[in-house]
Amino acid sequence: VSAGIVTLLTDFGLRDGYVGAVKGALLSRNPRLRLVDVSHDLEPGDVTAAAWALRQSAPAFPPGCVHLVVVDPGVGGERRGLACRSGSQLFVAPDNGVLHWILGDAPIVRSLAVADSASPVFHGRDVFAPAAAALAAGAALEPLGPGVEPDSLVRLPFAPAERGGDTWRGTVVHVDRFGNAITDLELPADVRGVAEVTGRAVPLRRTYSDVADGEPVALRGSSDTLELSCNGSSAARSLGIGLGDVIVFRVD
Amino acid sequence: VSAGIVTLLTDFGLRDGYVGAVKGALLSRNPRLRLVDVSHDLEPGDVTAAAWALRQSAPAFPPGCVHLVVVDPGVGGERRGLACRSGSQLFVAPDNGVLHWILGDAPIVRSLAVADSASPVFHGRDVFAPAAAALAAGAALEPLGPGVEPDSLVRLPFAPAERGGDTWRGTVVHVDRFGNAITDLELPADVRGVAEVTGRAVPLRRTYSDVADGEPVALRGSSDTLELSCNGSSAARSLGIGLGDVIVFRVD
Amino acid sequence: VSAGIVTLLTDFGLRDGYVGAVKGALLSRNPRLRLVDVSHDLEPGDVTAAAWALRQSAPAFPPGCVHLVVVDPGVGGERRGLACRSGSQLFVAPDNGVLHWILGDAPIVRSLAVADSASPVFHGRDVFAPAAAALAAGAALEPLGPGVEPDSLVRLPFAPAERGGDTWRGTVVHVDRFGNAITDLELPADVRGVAEVTGRAVPLRRTYSDVADGEPVALRGSSDTLELSCNGSSAARSLGIGLGDVIVFRVD
Repeated sequence: VSAGIVTLLTDFGLRDGYVGAVKGALLSRNPRLRLVDVSHDLEPGDVTAAAWALRQSAPAFPPGCVHLVVVDPGVGGERRGLACRSGSQLFVAPDNGVLHWILGDAPIVRSLAVADSASPVFHGRDVFAPAAAALAAGAALEPLGPGVEPDSLVRLPFAPAERGGDTWRGTVVHVDRFGNAITDLELPADVRGVAEVTGRAVPLRRTYSDVADGEPVALRGSSDTLELSCNGSSAARSLGIGLGDVIVFRVD
Repeated sequence: VSAGIVTLLTDFGLRDGYVGAVKGALLSRNPRLRLVDVSHDLEPGDVTAAAWALRQSAPAFPPGCVHLVVVDPGVGGERRGLACRSGSQLFVAPDNGVLHWILGDAPIVRSLAVADSASPVFHGRDVFAPAAAALAAGAALEPLGPGVEPDSLVRLPFAPAERGGDTWRGTVVHVDRFGNAITDLELPADVRGVAEVTGRAVPLRRTYSDVADGEPVALRGSSDTLELSCNGSSAARSLGIGLGDVIVFRVD
Repeated sequence: VSAGIVTLLTDFGLRDGYVGAVKGALLSRNPRLRLVDVSHDLEPGDVTAAAWALRQSAPAFPPGCVHLVVVDPGVGGERRGLACRSGSQLFVAPDNGVLHWILGDAPIVRSLAVADSASPVFHGRDVFAPAAAALAAGAALEPLGPGVEPDSLVRLPFAPAERGGDTWRGTVVHVDRFGNAITDLELPADVRGVAEVTGRAVPLRRTYSDVADGEPVALRGSSDTLELSCNGSSAARSLGIGLGDVIVFRVD
C-alpha cells in the first residue's frame, strides 16, 4: 500500500528555487501527492548529516512513504541513482552513503534509469522526483531500472558500534543544532552505565534536566542511541568532541 | 469541527531530522492530516519568540486548527505538557510561557499524560504529536490528561500593556527579521499619536514608505500592536531598542 | 482548471510568524488548498533573487497552480499588487520586478483592489493571500481589480541576453547557495562553445564532475541557461564574478 506521501530531504537551502522545482516535478506527475519537508538546510554536500537525518526521521513515518533525498555532490557523474525498499519504507537517493543507516536486513534496490532529456546537473528534479512520484502512486520498484546488489552500495566510513562484554563502543555520527553529540551505539531501554569522553566519566541519565545547567550528561537519545549532551549548551563544544570520535560506554 | 490541520512551530532548525520525526509521528496516527509549517528556525529554547510567532500566526487560521509548538528546553523534566482550547483554536505545547499571548478569556486546558514508552528527550514526537493528531481528528481534550487551572500556567515576565489616559505603555516583545521592534500595546485602528523611544519622538504613520529611507516610524503593525520600524533598515539597531524595553505612546 | 495548489515564495524567514499568518489566511478562505513552500529565506527585499527563484521553480509545476510571491519592500506604498496569468500558471505578487522572467508573450494582468480592512503593512496576508486563494479555487482574474497593460509592469534592470552570430552575451542574474553563477543566456541543448570570464576561457561541459575538483566549468544549467560553476566550490568567489556581470559565450 502506498500512503501517497513523499518526504523531502535536501541541501538546497531556502533561498533558491531548487526545492520548488523538485516539488513541482513531483506534483506534475501526480497533483494528489502529499509532500512533507524534512530539512533543506543541510550543509551543501553533507552526505553524513543527510544519512543521520534520514535515520532520525524515516522510522516515524507510516508504511509506504517515499523518502526522497537530494544531497548529491556527484550529480551527473558516475554515481548511481537508487530506488530502495527497506522494511515498510521506500527511498529514492543517490548512491553516496546517504542510505547507510536505513538499509535493513534485506533491502531491495534498483539503479534508476536516466532519460536522455534529464538535465545532467539536476537529477533531483528530472530523475529522482519522477521515480519518487511513481513509487508514491503505488508503482513497483522493478521498472525503474536494473537490480543492484545491496553489498555494492556506497557506505559511510564508520565502523559498526560494538556491544560485546561490558565495554561498548560507538562513534559520534552527528552533532545536532543544539550541540548534542549523537553516536550510533544503540542502548537498550534499561541499560545503566557511564560514558567515557576524553578521559572524563559522564554518567547516563534520563533527560537533560537530570544534571545542573551546563553539566555534561549521557542519554539514550531519541533514536535509542548513546548521546552526549549539556543541559542548556553545546556538549560537542564543551566536551571537545565531534564527528567520528569514538566513545566508550561502560555498562554497570 | 476539526479542520484536520496541524501547524508546526519549533526550534528544531532545518539541518536535523527532528522536524521530520514529528511529522512522521503525526502522519502515523493519521495519514490524512494536513501539516502546515509555521517556523522551525527559532533560536534554540527561545520561548518568547515562539510565543509571539504563535500570536502572529494562529489568529489567521480557520476554526478547529491544532497548533503544535515544540520549543521545549525543559523536555523530560518537571514542566507539564499542555493541550488547550482557546477560542476556536487548539494548542499543544509545553507549559513554559509559549501560550502567553493566545490564552483568551476562558481557555480549557489539560495536562498531557506521558506514556512510559515516550522518549524523555523527545516529547515533541512521542507526547505532543500524538495529542495533536488526536485533536485534529476531532477527539476531545478531556481524555488527554487531567484538567489544569488556567491561572496556574507559566506566563512570560512581561507587564501587561497600559492604555489609561493619553499616556499608553507597551513593551517590546519581539524584534523580527526585518528589525521591526514589535510591542504588545494594541492600538485602535483610528488612533493618532507619537511614540517616545529613548528620548526621541517617533510619529505614528500608516506604513513604512510614509517616511524617508532610513527614518524611524511608528506603525500599527500587522497584529494590531504598536511597532517601531525604519524604512529599509533595522529599527531595533538604529533606535537602540530591544526585547523588554518599555515604549511610551502619547495619544493626540 | 485549477489544481488547488498555492506555492509560497517569501523573504519572511523562518523565525517569525509571518509565513504562518499568510498560510492561515489562505486556509481560512479555503481549507482544502494545498500549500507548497518554495523558499522563505530570501534576503529581505531581494526582488532579483525572488524573480529568479520563481523562474527556477514555477515551470516545473502542473497547469493551474498559483504562485504567491511576497517579497515586498514597498508594501502599503504606491506599488501595485498584481494577479497574472502567464501560460498555464497563475501569479500573485507585488509589481516590483519579481515577475520579470516569467512573463510570457501575452500575460493577462490585473491590479489587486485593496480592501479598507487590509493592514497597510501586511498585504501578503490581507491582499495577496485572499487573491491567491480565490484563483486556486478556480475564480477568474477579472473581478480581482482593474486590468494592467503588461508593458507598464516594473522590470528588472537587466539587458536581455543576446544570441546573434557566434558571440553571445548573458548577464549573471543569480548566485545560488552552491556558488554557481547563473546567467539568463538560454543555451540550446546541443550547443558547443567557451565562456569568457574575466579574461579566462571556461569550456562548456556536461556536468560538474567533468572537470577536476576546484576547476571552473561552464554548463547548461537546470533552467537551460549558461551557468559558471566550480566542482566542489564557489564559482562566484573563485572566478570573481557576481550579480550583473556580463558573460560572453563564443559558439564553436
